[in-house]
Amino acid sequence: MNETLQTILQHRSIRSFTNDKITQEQINTIVEAAQMASTSSYMQAYSIIGVTNPQKKEALAQVSGQPYVKDNGHLFIFCADLYRHQIKATEEQLENMKANLENTEHLLVSTIDAALAAQNAAIASESMGLGMCYIGSLRNDIQQVDTILNLPPHVIPLFGMVIGVPAKEPEQKPRLPLEGVYFENEYNRNQDSSLNQFDATIKQYYENRSNNKRIDSWTDQMLRRFQNTMRMDVTPYVESKGFKKR
Amino acid sequence: MNETLQTILQHRSIRSFTNDKITQEQINTIVEAAQMASTSSYMQAYSIIGVTNPQKKEALAQVSGQPYVKDNGHLFIFCADLYRHQIKATEEQLENMKANLENTEHLLVSTIDAALAAQNAAIASESMGLGMCYIGSLRNDIQQVDTILNLPPHVIPLFGMVIGVPAKEPEQKPRLPLEGVYFENEYNRNQDSSLNQFDATIKQYYENRSNNKRIDSWTDQMLRRFQNTMRMDVTPYVESKGFKKR
Repeated sequence: MNETLQTILQHRSIRSFTNDKITQEQINTIVEAAQMASTSSYMQAYSIIGVTNPQKKEALAQVSGQPYVKDNGHLFIFCADLYRHQIKATEEQLENMKANLENTEHLLVSTIDAALAAQNAAIASESMGLGMCYIGSLRNDIQQVDTILNLPPHVIPLFGMVIGVPAKEPEQKPRLPLEGVYFENEYNRNQDSSLNQFDATIKQYYENRSNNKRIDSWTDQMLRRFQNTMRMDVTPYVESKGFKKR
Repeated sequence: MNETLQTILQHRSIRSFTNDKITQEQINTIVEAAQMASTSSYMQAYSIIGVTNPQKKEALAQVSGQPYVKDNGHLFIFCADLYRHQIKATEEQLENMKANLENTEHLLVSTIDAALAAQNAAIASESMGLGMCYIGSLRNDIQQVDTILNLPPHVIPLFGMVIGVPAKEPEQKPRLPLEGVYFENEYNRNQDSSLNQFDATIKQYYENRSNNKRIDSWTDQMLRRFQNTMRMDVTPYVESKGFKKR
């Protein structure tokens, strides 16, 4: 197995870092790696904001509820970005552009572009011996994150990424069986057996892990999660920024 | 520079493949690599469909308008998937779940999950000496792709990925200058200088490349692209599948 596959297959999210900051050279390498991901029709419809200001990091950690948003080697925020596509447009051009720019297609394009870039950043970091974790919990108060980062119209923050030197190496979390996510030629609606198999795996994983043992299955976690609404404010926020309006 | 960074930084999209099919073992490795990407709150909210049936590949190539959707070593379709999260729900639970499942937050979660998995698949493929290209043009007729793959509610096809042994090695396409996508502490709205610099780079790239020389800048491409609406049917399709409804 080659080194790259080893890096990918050994992934675990790191939520505890030493005090070491990553160097400017490492930051540049990670961003360059992110930029080399594929991009839909060459749009490069994302931006990355590195947050170093302690007050801003503290405020973002408050939004997320996670101390490691403040305490890490570096914090990146990945944004879907259709702002720079209109910078040189005349007023009339901009009016014409909006119906296109603001449709669901371009919410998908910019979100996918940002995520592909982010995953390159994740793999690049891990290949250099660093650890990382995605921070979706910034969407606990997405408008607040927008304000902290001073985002213009047609730019929305999707998630953060913390990177640093791992202080702990947690166990690797199992995934659904391959046949539970990979189908041939058409969608397989009969997923009961792979879900049952996975629930058994997960119960064992939670029973055996060194920290934070519990009794739970994946199915129960998901049923609980989806019983109550969360982050309903993401919808009006995203619309207010000129995404998915049409 | 480590092997993984070299793989990432050498990326170029491959649109022409030899007749070699990739092996089942390679397919499994690529899917396992995809599965090891981070996933929001352990949701694993995506599915991957491998298409081998020649009629289906032909039909998908028609939708995309690209012959390499038919002629490749393997074709994957990546879907945002919230279907399996409800399989074991009672009817009453399902009713409660929908407001949550169908909000914009979970369109973002599932789209991001699918894209992170896909980029792991891309890097894994390239690390094995294969070439790949994303196929966003499946969204030219997203309902048709849905029908071909027999997708249930709460599953939407986002993009395809073709993988295979490269028949040609195209030149690498330049990216925006680093300071054009990476900002510190807040968004930088003054992007004129990086866009001007990039437009100059791009003009030179198109003038010098061996195939398909042309005179064009990135800014002009983007202004043209966004002048006319495209894929407006993605909006009602996505809503009809129970995404971004609330």
